[in-house]
Amino acid sequence: MTSSPYPAAPINLAHKAALIDEQWSPRVVAEMNDYQFKVVRIEGEFIWHSHPETDEAFLVLEGTLRIDLPDGPVYVAPGELYVVPHGIEHRTAAEGEARLMMIEPRGILNTGHEGGDRTAVNDRWI
Amino acid sequence: MTSSPYPAAPINLAHKAALIDEQWSPRVVAEMNDYQFKVVRIEGEFIWHSHPETDEAFLVLEGTLRIDLPDGPVYVAPGELYVVPHGIEHRTAAEGEARLMMIEPRGILNTGHEGGDRTAVNDRWI
Repeated sequence: MTSSPYPAAPINLAHKAALIDEQWSPRVVAEMNDYQFKVVRIEGEFIWHSHPETDEAFLVLEGTLRIDLPDGPVYVAPGELYVVPHGIEHRTAAEGEARLMMIEPRGILNTGHEGGDRTAVNDRWI
Repeated sequence: MTSSPYPAAPINLAHKAALIDEQWSPRVVAEMNDYQFKVVRIEGEFIWHSHPETDEAFLVLEGTLRIDLPDGPVYVAPGELYVVPHGIEHRTAAEGEARLMMIEPRGILNTGHEGGDRTAVNDRWI
């Protein structure tokens, strides 16, 4: 059996999100060069953090994502994209569950350099 | 007036696509590091090409995207993601209009290194 040099089928993002059995646990669904596409289910508030080395993109699949930023929150609805620039302190949150796709370079931790018990295991695929 | 170091609002991808007045003309809607998010309306068939230097991601917003690949087509529906690996010959197509978001490094041409009259002006924002 030979393996194909490209995927046989597209990735359905909502289906992937539905397979994840815990919140705040990003799962990788695809890669593009040294970037990863991650799907995550969130509810409640994360911790404030930043990523000095990279911007971070969020695409909402379901629910409403609130991104707290230094001057106040931005609300992101399904089908909307928001890019948090590198170095900007932010906190993701959702009242009720939200399902998101995140895009960021491989190796970036969800808590930036804050560490702590909200830090998710990295590079888990689904 | 001081400008904020981050966007004041998210980008609604369907709304952006609806503003584009011609097909096969990708428009940049956001950037993440040295990558660009582009929205495009397509219909009919593009030309075969490849990007030796980069993978290319497609997320379908509306309609069905057909990506012709060396061993046959892949069909991508709304909410689905497909990443064409670098160096893989491909041709995008849609029977009826499809609206997509593409993600690729800044400076990548839609026709790869093929050139010709299907080459779109690069780095046009909407």
